[in-house]
Amino acid sequence: MFDIQDHRFGKTWLKALSAPLPETLASPSETARFELGAYFGPSETPSVQVIPEMGDSYRIERKDGLLCVSGGETGVLYGAYALLFASAAGSKLPEQTQTPYYPLRVLSCWDNMDGSVERGYSGRSIWFEGGHLCYEPGRICQLGRMLASAGINVLCLNNVNVHYPAQELMLGMLPELAAFAGLLRPFGVRLMLSADFSMPLRYGLDTADTLDEGVQRWWRDRAESVWKAIPDFAGFMVKADSEHRPGPNAYGRTHAEGANMLARAIAPFGGTLIWRAFVYDCMQDWRDTKTDRAKAAYELYKPLDGCFDENVVLQVKHGPFDFQVREPVSPLLLSMPGTRLALEVQLAQEYTGQQTDIYAMPPMWREVFDTVGKDRVKAFTAVSNLGRDANWTGHPFAALNLFAFGRFAWDPDTDPEQVTRLWARLTYSLETAQEDTLVKWLMRSRRIYEKYTSNLGLGWMVTPNSHYGPNPWGYEFQAWGTYNRADREKVGIDRTFSGTDYVGQYPEKMKNEYADLETCPDDLLLFFHRLGYGYGMRDGRSLIQRIYDDHFDGYREAEEMAEELLTLPLPPEDMAEVRDRMLRQLANAREWRDVTNTFFRRLSGAEDAQGRKIFA
Amino acid sequence: MFDIQDHRFGKTWLKALSAPLPETLASPSETARFELGAYFGPSETPSVQVIPEMGDSYRIERKDGLLCVSGGETGVLYGAYALLFASAAGSKLPEQTQTPYYPLRVLSCWDNMDGSVERGYSGRSIWFEGGHLCYEPGRICQLGRMLASAGINVLCLNNVNVHYPAQELMLGMLPELAAFAGLLRPFGVRLMLSADFSMPLRYGLDTADTLDEGVQRWWRDRAESVWKAIPDFAGFMVKADSEHRPGPNAYGRTHAEGANMLARAIAPFGGTLIWRAFVYDCMQDWRDTKTDRAKAAYELYKPLDGCFDENVVLQVKHGPFDFQVREPVSPLLLSMPGTRLALEVQLAQEYTGQQTDIYAMPPMWREVFDTVGKDRVKAFTAVSNLGRDANWTGHPFAALNLFAFGRFAWDPDTDPEQVTRLWARLTYSLETAQEDTLVKWLMRSRRIYEKYTSNLGLGWMVTPNSHYGPNPWGYEFQAWGTYNRADREKVGIDRTFSGTDYVGQYPEKMKNEYADLETCPDDLLLFFHRLGYGYGMRDGRSLIQRIYDDHFDGYREAEEMAEELLTLPLPPEDMAEVRDRMLRQLANAREWRDVTNTFFRRLSGAEDAQGRKIFA
Repeated sequence: MFDIQDHRFGKTWLKALSAPLPETLASPSETARFELGAYFGPSETPSVQVIPEMGDSYRIERKDGLLCVSGGETGVLYGAYALLFASAAGSKLPEQTQTPYYPLRVLSCWDNMDGSVERGYSGRSIWFEGGHLCYEPGRICQLGRMLASAGINVLCLNNVNVHYPAQELMLGMLPELAAFAGLLRPFGVRLMLSADFSMPLRYGLDTADTLDEGVQRWWRDRAESVWKAIPDFAGFMVKADSEHRPGPNAYGRTHAEGANMLARAIAPFGGTLIWRAFVYDCMQDWRDTKTDRAKAAYELYKPLDGCFDENVVLQVKHGPFDFQVREPVSPLLLSMPGTRLALEVQLAQEYTGQQTDIYAMPPMWREVFDTVGKDRVKAFTAVSNLGRDANWTGHPFAALNLFAFGRFAWDPDTDPEQVTRLWARLTYSLETAQEDTLVKWLMRSRRIYEKYTSNLGLGWMVTPNSHYGPNPWGYEFQAWGTYNRADREKVGIDRTFSGTDYVGQYPEKMKNEYADLETCPDDLLLFFHRLGYGYGMRDGRSLIQRIYDDHFDGYREAEEMAEELLTLPLPPEDMAEVRDRMLRQLANAREWRDVTNTFFRRLSGAEDAQGRKIFA
Repeated sequence: MFDIQDHRFGKTWLKALSAPLPETLASPSETARFELGAYFGPSETPSVQVIPEMGDSYRIERKDGLLCVSGGETGVLYGAYALLFASAAGSKLPEQTQTPYYPLRVLSCWDNMDGSVERGYSGRSIWFEGGHLCYEPGRICQLGRMLASAGINVLCLNNVNVHYPAQELMLGMLPELAAFAGLLRPFGVRLMLSADFSMPLRYGLDTADTLDEGVQRWWRDRAESVWKAIPDFAGFMVKADSEHRPGPNAYGRTHAEGANMLARAIAPFGGTLIWRAFVYDCMQDWRDTKTDRAKAAYELYKPLDGCFDENVVLQVKHGPFDFQVREPVSPLLLSMPGTRLALEVQLAQEYTGQQTDIYAMPPMWREVFDTVGKDRVKAFTAVSNLGRDANWTGHPFAALNLFAFGRFAWDPDTDPEQVTRLWARLTYSLETAQEDTLVKWLMRSRRIYEKYTSNLGLGWMVTPNSHYGPNPWGYEFQAWGTYNRADREKVGIDRTFSGTDYVGQYPEKMKNEYADLETCPDDLLLFFHRLGYGYGMRDGRSLIQRIYDDHFDGYREAEEMAEELLTLPLPPEDMAEVRDRMLRQLANAREWRDVTNTFFRRLSGAEDAQGRKIFA
């Protein structure tokens, strides 16, 4: 029995799932029966009926007064959690058959085999250390339970930037990997690995060219041995020709050729090939005002629409840049009808507070799905925010983002406030007024963070490398294509027809909405337009005053948030973390407010209309 | 015999010293005899006469037609090198008795025991690796020869930021340290160690308080065992209460109390205690315009003048900040008549091109000594620019700075051009016109670097942490006290009576010179004054135009320098390094020029009067 109280296994995820997990669970349906039995007790345990062809789907019914969960082998597990959560939350049971909207619900972990986690803010890797798979089995089972209860069914284990010896995972380390896969199998979680496109070169071949038969054979051999060891292996994820990673371009091949070669190697085993579309020129000259990094992915991939094999999924970040606080949706998501797309979001709060600042993501995802249309993509994937910290996510509230990600992947029509409330209730069981307070601030947290960091769609005003803390020109004269080009008159990038014409990549209606100052949303104003500080916003304020106001307001609201949240009766260990991080958030928010306002005041020379202190 | 051609021992230092070194040299006088014999040949070898009481001094005479070097045990070695260099350079023999002006000529190495070198730009540590003393004995002997031939007599082996296990050097590692000392003894080079003020805490005491008898006894015991193992050990160097290093302030003691306690522990053995005066508030709030980091050292140490023991040397950086391209001299150097001061410079080109950009230091030192007065200080010390690179200094020309440092320490009246020419001749034996070309550009190199990086005394406009590359506001909103406070109207810090009154720390004449815009040197204008971009310089140009001009000129001159230097017939391995670094210097200089000019154009809105391209 893995005792949930054992600190080595990490802290309880949701209150309703606090029973110790047996070590002997062999299948998802067995897990389903265990979870229901543990929660409802022997006399009230709902029955479980496996109907294999239902797959991930489930149905909850009352038969002869007894609750019954029927579904596929994994479906009954999802049904069991749904039933259990509805009971714990006091909400209505789902009616009719429930089927996940996206069959692929992938958590991508940027874990390195040395135990570090790229952009990890909650401790070291849960499963890597010193170049080996190295973990506490009980903690991996708890992880499986967390993922399954959120609805996540694929775990990509290693960083998309594949650092040696992660290549070995699909070679000499396969037996260890298979053992690891076995721990997650009872939770319906399948493994995926990030593959290094240039791997054949490391293992004796003299090329990694897609069209080379030896290379093709090498990858088929890899696939064969991987699936032999792990029959339910999910597939590979590849970051190629991106930020100095190797890729097909080195051999004059297209990304479709590159992806398809790998896809064909794994197709016989039912594997999926996730190909990341995060490709741009990361050696741009800041002097070059014609090149617009935001345009890069569309220009590269749009011509390849229809060229990707059936089992390729092209994974596109939600915005054209890189998980900024605010970006418009990536035009690529709207432009690839002949390609299976995955929408990628980042739970790891790289640019959104690093699990120090509170930043609940459901409102952002609601906007993205509403703009893109859920049917335009075929999978929902996320960069993980998990780590070896006892509470898994560093900030206790960051667990919401993991839970909600799974819910959105299951049902992209999820209401952000409802899922936030469900998470809060399952985690803390507060009284109504307290729960309202927590939900209110979580829902507002993104906007607050945006206000005190970088409003109006500016983005990138952060400390280089760490990506935390205010640095308005930290990326201004760099090679990353990320500029605000502020001067004493104006700020922002003209991405309309008169500028870089990035807007031209959008469908007609959106193009016009963004290009027209009358209709462009304030939140994206300086993303699409270059404007003078005196520009009159629709609300009557000048642009510079809006910049000042947002930064003052953001800090003030963060103070209010801290004041109210710190009155909540959270468990002591959570409250200690929340308090500590909240105080750091406040100190950092003050820094962000003052540095940003001073920066713009030095440039614009404008005073604050309300006479508040802006430092020299 | 250590073969000088063996690459493990590093490249030849000066041509005249290319004979393989015997492994059996036992004393400086024996080394002197060997060097003279190897250079002049058996029949022409000058005689050597040791007169112990002459110490470091020497006298070269012609007796009965034969050259004779007489002097102390170390003096004859210095005399031998002087004779040898005069012969190789074709210059006149020194007349009369030569005595070094500063008895302490210290090279301070920021080498860590893991083999890294803090601010090292020429490879890893020559003597540390993996937590151990780990070296090629032949290379250490070559090092001894280099140091002796330059006139340097003390080598401080470990970083002033003492990272574990460097504390062990004076405990469990003493036998290894003694063996190392033995390799340098025949070259008259004595060892010094950086000590960690808090060491007693690590070794079982519950305090490191200066006034605690147990602590005093602990340090006396340390001294006793160190000098027992190495009787000619030179002493300790200490960085205390500085940049998060521990120090006496933690116990409410003054720096004099802290230094004297250590000094008394080592006094019985003739040891010197070098106490670094690099102390300031490194947690300053950028919003605070009253605090001026430049004032910190004077405010702390001036009241302690006269309180330091006889064997304490207070080591003061040449400027009030930290080895910037241009700083006024530290007022502390002019204010401590009752204290033995060391003037500290930095051969490691942390802020001066990192041994990629050419930056010859003799002109800077000439200015510093002329301003301070050589008699105000009692020792000359430098942070080392040496590393494990085959050529010792990364850039072959950076060897000039090591050589010239030794010459200035011997004779602070050294002429910068003469010493540069001597080094060039001893290193390359070029034809006169070529030598003139090399000397000309070396002499101009500092000014060129200053022009394209940060002119008019601005400083600090560099990438944080690495300290290389343009970043005008890289340190602007940080805690280090290093600001230019540029806005759309003005730039610079008012350090006159109307501002922070830093000028008040200078003697009357200098105070008035710096405070008065009529007399303040252009090179320090924005160090002392805050001025509008339209300010009219004495040469008729506006301030902003001077900023633009210097950056354009600096880059153009760097191009000219490259063009001429690359025609020189240097040895192939040197030329390969020079070419590679010169190309990087040019690329970096272009970046510096454009980023800095764009930065000021965005703020000032001013166009270039000559219509040259300043990017948006």
